[in-house]
Amino acid sequence: MRGNLLYAQSGGVTAVINASACAVIETARRHKVRVLAARNGIIGALREDLIDTSKDSAAAIAALRHTPGGAFGSCRFKLKSIEEDRARYERLIEVFRAHDIRWFLYNGGNDSADTSQKISQVGKALGYDITVVGVPKTVDNDLAVTDCCPGFGSVAKYTAVSVLEASLDVASMAESSTKVFVMEVMGRHAGWIAAAAGLAGRTDDDAPHLILFPEIPFDETSFLARVKATVERVGWCTVVTSEGLRNREGRFLSEVGTRDAFGHAQLGGVAPLLAQLVKDRLGYKYHWAMPDYLQRSARHLSSKTDVDHACAVGKAAVELALAGRNAVMPAIIRQSDAPYRWKIEAVPLEKVANHEKKLPKGFIRRDGYGITAAARRYLEPLVRGEAPPPYGRDGLPKYARLKNVGVKPRLPAYVIADR
Amino acid sequence: MRGNLLYAQSGGVTAVINASACAVIETARRHKVRVLAARNGIIGALREDLIDTSKDSAAAIAALRHTPGGAFGSCRFKLKSIEEDRARYERLIEVFRAHDIRWFLYNGGNDSADTSQKISQVGKALGYDITVVGVPKTVDNDLAVTDCCPGFGSVAKYTAVSVLEASLDVASMAESSTKVFVMEVMGRHAGWIAAAAGLAGRTDDDAPHLILFPEIPFDETSFLARVKATVERVGWCTVVTSEGLRNREGRFLSEVGTRDAFGHAQLGGVAPLLAQLVKDRLGYKYHWAMPDYLQRSARHLSSKTDVDHACAVGKAAVELALAGRNAVMPAIIRQSDAPYRWKIEAVPLEKVANHEKKLPKGFIRRDGYGITAAARRYLEPLVRGEAPPPYGRDGLPKYARLKNVGVKPRLPAYVIADR
Repeated sequence: MRGNLLYAQSGGVTAVINASACAVIETARRHKVRVLAARNGIIGALREDLIDTSKDSAAAIAALRHTPGGAFGSCRFKLKSIEEDRARYERLIEVFRAHDIRWFLYNGGNDSADTSQKISQVGKALGYDITVVGVPKTVDNDLAVTDCCPGFGSVAKYTAVSVLEASLDVASMAESSTKVFVMEVMGRHAGWIAAAAGLAGRTDDDAPHLILFPEIPFDETSFLARVKATVERVGWCTVVTSEGLRNREGRFLSEVGTRDAFGHAQLGGVAPLLAQLVKDRLGYKYHWAMPDYLQRSARHLSSKTDVDHACAVGKAAVELALAGRNAVMPAIIRQSDAPYRWKIEAVPLEKVANHEKKLPKGFIRRDGYGITAAARRYLEPLVRGEAPPPYGRDGLPKYARLKNVGVKPRLPAYVIADR
Repeated sequence: MRGNLLYAQSGGVTAVINASACAVIETARRHKVRVLAARNGIIGALREDLIDTSKDSAAAIAALRHTPGGAFGSCRFKLKSIEEDRARYERLIEVFRAHDIRWFLYNGGNDSADTSQKISQVGKALGYDITVVGVPKTVDNDLAVTDCCPGFGSVAKYTAVSVLEASLDVASMAESSTKVFVMEVMGRHAGWIAAAAGLAGRTDDDAPHLILFPEIPFDETSFLARVKATVERVGWCTVVTSEGLRNREGRFLSEVGTRDAFGHAQLGGVAPLLAQLVKDRLGYKYHWAMPDYLQRSARHLSSKTDVDHACAVGKAAVELALAGRNAVMPAIIRQSDAPYRWKIEAVPLEKVANHEKKLPKGFIRRDGYGITAAARRYLEPLVRGEAPPPYGRDGLPKYARLKNVGVKPRLPAYVIADR
């Protein structure tokens, strides 16, 4: 077919965004379409900093399937409304025109869906024929319409396995040492990842004993009472907290702290605060963990379901684009929980853009500290299956290293000015 | 044979201490020797709180091979000299006598080797025939004589893989977001785990760009200059720091902080301190991670070499004990780096007890911020190979849950009094 396809990665990367990239490139190659990639997401598209993916071998592209991070670079850069950012949208169309880009695939979350939709509008307005398709991705699992987001299943699996393993450790130490373990997970506005930790336990006495969701205001008295009761009953206690835990006034605990009356900025996150609170009030020895980027880059522990989803949306996005389906996104539609069945369906970007999918109320246990059976039914298929990377003789995963050969610019240099 | 074998776990547990337990029990079963386990290490032995491992099936015991934590409970409890703690040593012998314990295997680090040796002396002094054998274990890799310690290879692999993965994430984000990533690893007195992070990179531009060892006093000026130079050259920078990083006065950074003039206790560890320092002085956006217990319980990512070592020392310990070799420990002797060859050899406990193996000077790069080729030659075989646990339909590893049936006490209750 005539023209090139431009692919770009956006926002926080995941363990499987490159699996989507792999599927995009492999599917396009089967259709004899050349794929250019924007270096560092939309920033590269604006700067005309493009990568010719045809310079990388089939083996290198195939290895993207099991490589975490964003192989072409991602960005945190939000385009505003067409009115406010008209010059930038027009620049994008100019770059598309200069490189004969007929299809644009933007792999990201809410903001990217919004950006994609706007680009498709600008193309029309400027009389440039471009087909824009979104590719869903986010560890936060907060995209609307799609049943889940590629990236979430893997961080969910990492979180559940880590809680299970660390809790076996705590249980061994509790008699004479650590009695409380606090682990902080991502999720500033929605408790999807925290909820996934709940998969590690089946009974009340299994870890995690307490999950703290951003959806439920933190109640110090009730929290401490439950930690104490758990230690007295089980011998130890594992707490999982969302980074986005808030107080009753709706302020993030990580910002206000729980005790510091002097207004000093706290260095850490929520986990050290809670651990210190437990120590000060209950006297228990604690440990705390903050896996941070480790949780969203842990491709070595990805769920197979997640990798399959990531590949499927990448492949579908190319097929939709080549079929001329403008301003859509392939969504994952769940057909049944058990057996787990799903399919891909195109949905309009406008239904995805700027909506945020919250954790349903029915997923949080009535007492606010755990997950329900409904949450488990939803989450379990997403962490199912293993898809480990190949390992080398050096004991490390063999992750792809692309050449990322640049395409010669055809336009004058462009500086992304401050607004 | 006549009599029972008592097995106990001690100190911080590892991803593979249960693999040693598995080998101990399986080997003893082959010799028709019944294994009792002390609940929570030496504390259970003192309290006569013993577990009859014969009540657990062969399948349950086999599953210990791939289960992290300490299946019988561990403890942080140090017996002092025979003079100071005579009553406790005598109580132990009393418990041994009551349960016809003829062989005692203590699975731990330096302190446990010391305790084991003393128990063997007390047995002799009291005319009770007991054979005591140490089983090496510690993630810190600081035991003398043995080439490495079971537990270390797995935490080393976890650390190297995590740094590799998280750094791919940082590299993707650096253009418009996170430029510096700081990860804190265990190792209060020796930089073995920090050194293992160095396996993730091969060239100067690969992560980790800076490793901070407890052996090298922290120099703020030189550290900041190197972070800056790395970000300017590579675009981003990954720092790995030991929890035991110290200032020039030899004080732990995690205790004194770097800036707080008011003497406020800092909540976090070293990683948030360093990250904040980078932000304040250089203005770079940062992320930091503190895997804590996750690193030493990550059985899902254990190295096969480590699992093999853990099994081998467990098996050898039983064989040595049954052969009447008192006050020894099976050590891992390296015969060659490439191909990696090793064997087990009995060494006297007195050579192990109370010695601490430091990271050799020749393993730290001359500039103090990385590892040498000699370190890589030593470390690489230890992280080699994968030995993943089986996973269930729920997407989680199938870790052993023992029944841990107690043995009926035969002695009056005993309270471990404060000294």
